[in-house]
Amino acid sequence: MSAYCLATYRCFDEKADFHKKATGIAVGLTVGSWTELPEAQKAQMEKHLGKVVAVEVHEPAPGQPPSERYADIQIAYPDVNFSRDIPALLVTVFGKLSMDGKIKLIDLNFSPGFMAGFAGPKFGMQGVRDLLGVHDRPLLMSIFKSVVGYELPALREQFYLQAAGGVDLIKDDEILFENPLTPLEKRIEVCLEAAEQATKETGQKLLYAVNLTGPTFQLAEQAKKAIRAGANALLFNVLAYGFDVLQALSADPEINIPIMAHPAMAGATYPSPHYGISASVLLGKLMRLAGADLVLFPSPYGSVVMPREENLAIKQVLLTNDLHRDYAYGAASDTDLKLAASFPVPSAGIHPGLVPLILRDFGGDVVVNAGGGIHGHPLGTIAGGQAFRQAIDATLQGITLRDYANNHPELKAAIDTWGIKE
Amino acid sequence: MSAYCLATYRCFDEKADFHKKATGIAVGLTVGSWTELPEAQKAQMEKHLGKVVAVEVHEPAPGQPPSERYADIQIAYPDVNFSRDIPALLVTVFGKLSMDGKIKLIDLNFSPGFMAGFAGPKFGMQGVRDLLGVHDRPLLMSIFKSVVGYELPALREQFYLQAAGGVDLIKDDEILFENPLTPLEKRIEVCLEAAEQATKETGQKLLYAVNLTGPTFQLAEQAKKAIRAGANALLFNVLAYGFDVLQALSADPEINIPIMAHPAMAGATYPSPHYGISASVLLGKLMRLAGADLVLFPSPYGSVVMPREENLAIKQVLLTNDLHRDYAYGAASDTDLKLAASFPVPSAGIHPGLVPLILRDFGGDVVVNAGGGIHGHPLGTIAGGQAFRQAIDATLQGITLRDYANNHPELKAAIDTWGIKE
Repeated sequence: MSAYCLATYRCFDEKADFHKKATGIAVGLTVGSWTELPEAQKAQMEKHLGKVVAVEVHEPAPGQPPSERYADIQIAYPDVNFSRDIPALLVTVFGKLSMDGKIKLIDLNFSPGFMAGFAGPKFGMQGVRDLLGVHDRPLLMSIFKSVVGYELPALREQFYLQAAGGVDLIKDDEILFENPLTPLEKRIEVCLEAAEQATKETGQKLLYAVNLTGPTFQLAEQAKKAIRAGANALLFNVLAYGFDVLQALSADPEINIPIMAHPAMAGATYPSPHYGISASVLLGKLMRLAGADLVLFPSPYGSVVMPREENLAIKQVLLTNDLHRDYAYGAASDTDLKLAASFPVPSAGIHPGLVPLILRDFGGDVVVNAGGGIHGHPLGTIAGGQAFRQAIDATLQGITLRDYANNHPELKAAIDTWGIKE
Repeated sequence: MSAYCLATYRCFDEKADFHKKATGIAVGLTVGSWTELPEAQKAQMEKHLGKVVAVEVHEPAPGQPPSERYADIQIAYPDVNFSRDIPALLVTVFGKLSMDGKIKLIDLNFSPGFMAGFAGPKFGMQGVRDLLGVHDRPLLMSIFKSVVGYELPALREQFYLQAAGGVDLIKDDEILFENPLTPLEKRIEVCLEAAEQATKETGQKLLYAVNLTGPTFQLAEQAKKAIRAGANALLFNVLAYGFDVLQALSADPEINIPIMAHPAMAGATYPSPHYGISASVLLGKLMRLAGADLVLFPSPYGSVVMPREENLAIKQVLLTNDLHRDYAYGAASDTDLKLAASFPVPSAGIHPGLVPLILRDFGGDVVVNAGGGIHGHPLGTIAGGQAFRQAIDATLQGITLRDYANNHPELKAAIDTWGIKE
């Protein structure tokens, strides 16, 4: 009995027969031709044939231009046609088709059988919380301010100031590559030294996500080098290397530290309404399937914006156990499909005054991630971290930021600078 | 003395101060902050600072909506900031920035120093011609019609019919993955057997590009397995794996057969005017830099269309030796920057009646590539290949297809079916 992966497309066309188009996709991207096959061969080929699951045509509303006519088309692709890896799935469902007019891949549902080939995040949200020993509040992460061109002492100083403010995670800048000023192993050494110093003062653990870069075929070795140097987390520019590389790194038993997926280059793919791949697939489902323990994506609040509903769709697929979703096609599953959840990290433009909003949108299972909102604090970087922690504490206790700020000068200074958005 | 890679962006915004935005990019994606640095530190950081090379603002023409206001912004990024690999360059110039509003990466110029880290195509156009012993005409390639779900004898038969018609190259379908019916080594065996049979009849050599698929970290081994089985060319879905993987495969001395780059998934990135990466960068410059010997891209003629000027831009960068282009920034080069040319393969919707147009647009250095235009020939697949060869011969001899068809029944049947487009 066959199983199928499902792809949903949004397809714009002023006058296409979308039902015919759907059939063309289902046949063209699987067995190639169908109606002209002899009946005996049809019986044999049936299990390789794609199926049209749904075609929902949306005619333009009165006043809308004809170019707004679109259909959401869902096609089921037999698992038997492709190998159990993300490149094979993507090339099947959106290889040639991506170039066929105004068409966007808006959803992807993995069959139980396909998913069974993936272990998902090795740590996941729970594992990251366990490493940090923090289970009762959102985590706080901070980003280096300036790193390119700086030497080790400057990096160490920045690291210490962030850590001393009470953040849980610190990530490298994604544009910090192997370089003579702050090479990987030295960087890990001085940053973890700074972490240790801060931990003595704050009593708090800390993960440092060091940027994993360089030639693809050397990444696993580079990750292990980082681990030997003491690294306790990795940052990875997934889209510059491909989901399959993330999957392989995540599945490697010797790479036993969390991997944080950075969305660099994702904007080349998700924002257009007419082309590309939706954010919830690109930065959600595929990241989790490939094993990202934490996933950064543009927040709906700040400078690099993404619509709120797209953000919540990402959150939904990172956290909940329905990646495969029940569907009409294919065998029922007796596999355990509970991939660990990936920690959502909505990023960019975050300041303490946004914390109540973030927690309302994302609940407690979120990493509050800030750069300028920490380094730009008028009382300095340490106070910047403290202000965020205060904002989180206040929100969890149901106290308004303004009230809590009365006897928390760091939070007060942050609010005076950036305001509160509710 | 520093050298710089140049990135050009098209950036849409109704009211942005584009000069300010350009400065923000140049600083933000390099040293992080600038104006607030002490003078002594500025001197030290200068070599890491990005530079605004050009800002060309285009106000909307009368009658155009304000959303059509855009600027082309060119930024120079110091080589010293990133390692000599494509992921590092792309993450630097279009990592975070890709998510920053309506912005498209429309051009990329590599510094001589950056390019020096790349060997380019191992065979290139000339090398592919040498392997085939064909130097005086465009090459002809054909694509399997239906492959998924078919067994080896059917594949062999299809292969033979294509080869017997006089094509120079045959490629796997890009959606043919490792599968029990036609596994890689068996496929190579039977197809090369069919090639040999055809060669005895046509006296003509032939390359078969077998699809290289599977887990990223096993691709090099898989390629070598294919070579041991006799493979004389590889097809590779570059965008599903990343440019860096193509680069590594191409640079591997043991992978001594041409690599054909397939554009699967490229449509998720190049077609939007507002987002993504232009086709000439994605399917042109980066493919050649990474070492593709042949590059497939959607033709402007057929079903999967790309505007003609974009096609010609791809051709231009695949064939000519100006990938680095002289520019104001950085040291002059004494490196030999002549990367081999990549063979352009405009694809989709090609029939013999288009050959004069293709040769006018692309000149003689092109691979004429057809699927339906060969298999769908009314006199059969062999006649399909022959009709193309006749169309090429006619065009090179300056004879109109209609005249040549008078005593070439295969060409005549093709023209009667698909017409001539001039």
